[in-house]
Amino acid sequence: MSPRRTGRRPGNPDTREAILAAARTAFAERGFDAASIRVIAAAAGVDPALVHHYFGTKEQLFRATVDIPVDPAQLLPAVLAGDVDGVGERLVRTFLTVWDSPAGAAAVALLRSAVANEWTARLLREFLVTQVLRRVLDQLAVDPAELPLRGSLVATQMIGLAMMRYVIRLEPVASADPEALVTAVAPTVQRYLTGQLDQGSARSRSR
Amino acid sequence: MSPRRTGRRPGNPDTREAILAAARTAFAERGFDAASIRVIAAAAGVDPALVHHYFGTKEQLFRATVDIPVDPAQLLPAVLAGDVDGVGERLVRTFLTVWDSPAGAAAVALLRSAVANEWTARLLREFLVTQVLRRVLDQLAVDPAELPLRGSLVATQMIGLAMMRYVIRLEPVASADPEALVTAVAPTVQRYLTGQLDQGSARSRSR
Repeated sequence: MSPRRTGRRPGNPDTREAILAAARTAFAERGFDAASIRVIAAAAGVDPALVHHYFGTKEQLFRATVDIPVDPAQLLPAVLAGDVDGVGERLVRTFLTVWDSPAGAAAVALLRSAVANEWTARLLREFLVTQVLRRVLDQLAVDPAELPLRGSLVATQMIGLAMMRYVIRLEPVASADPEALVTAVAPTVQRYLTGQLDQGSARSRSR
Repeated sequence: MSPRRTGRRPGNPDTREAILAAARTAFAERGFDAASIRVIAAAAGVDPALVHHYFGTKEQLFRATVDIPVDPAQLLPAVLAGDVDGVGERLVRTFLTVWDSPAGAAAVALLRSAVANEWTARLLREFLVTQVLRRVLDQLAVDPAELPLRGSLVATQMIGLAMMRYVIRLEPVASADPEALVTAVAPTVQRYLTGQLDQGSARSRSR
């Protein structure tokens, strides 16, 4: 979708790299919300219009800095459409579809890099929160005070699934049919999104 | 606990390192079960008795190769004692207690190294399966055919929790009170250990 991928408007490679470097610094230091195209353009020594020309919106620039070729803004509406009780299932299925696809290699590379490098870890945190979790949680009728905890709990399960399937490669999760994993993991994600996070009732029910 | 830590029997550092290097290779290539002290001793060019003298049992030698200063064999009996419905809760609490303690730094280092290095990833897989998951699942009355999937699902949640709390440091999970995380995550681990992995009933129940 981006000029970089289609190659239709390659531009000056040095200018592109300068913008990307300035954007990585700004997103990691200030966070996605506070970083502005204006500040990024100034740091790169270019006009803001050139940033938009090369990269499009701030979201698209951010995705270019983390080198993720999928756009959560395009994938998530289908996850959020339909019954609320199925959001967890659709989120896990979409997640596995992306990571199992050729685009998954970029996601695995980002995860590996975030483990090795605090700068990339900040970018990954910003990506998870602003591009994925916030978009999902904004659509659900849950207590706003609980949103950060719910979002980060979802991240523990999804990133843990990615770690075991694609990085550590623990069997049988590494080779399992995606639908078997959807079936097993979706109730966890659904509970973190909309369920009761206090386990008291769950434990007494299972006795 | 080991001679290495107490320093009571330091031995020849070159011999110790040769044994550790041979053990890492054997455990990563053959797995924990198939690797024998005899083969490791032969690869290191020493007598098997010297391996036992320096490192103790095969389990203790394995823990030395992954440089983990805690012994699951000592921690897990308390997790498994008591009601079966509380195993998930006690497992998450014990896990967080270890990772929040000074010993957690070694665990974080192992996790980082496993992401960067396939050799260490193999050792981490063997550690998770043979030293932790097998010990827990052996004590639970579940279908033996389901044990590998249950074990690796538990690993997705636990390693994901460690990733988000200690490596990526996503808030609020990174700074949360351990008991809040136990409350939120224990039902997930309990379901993976002993619960229904088919979500059909869970979804219809929540409608």
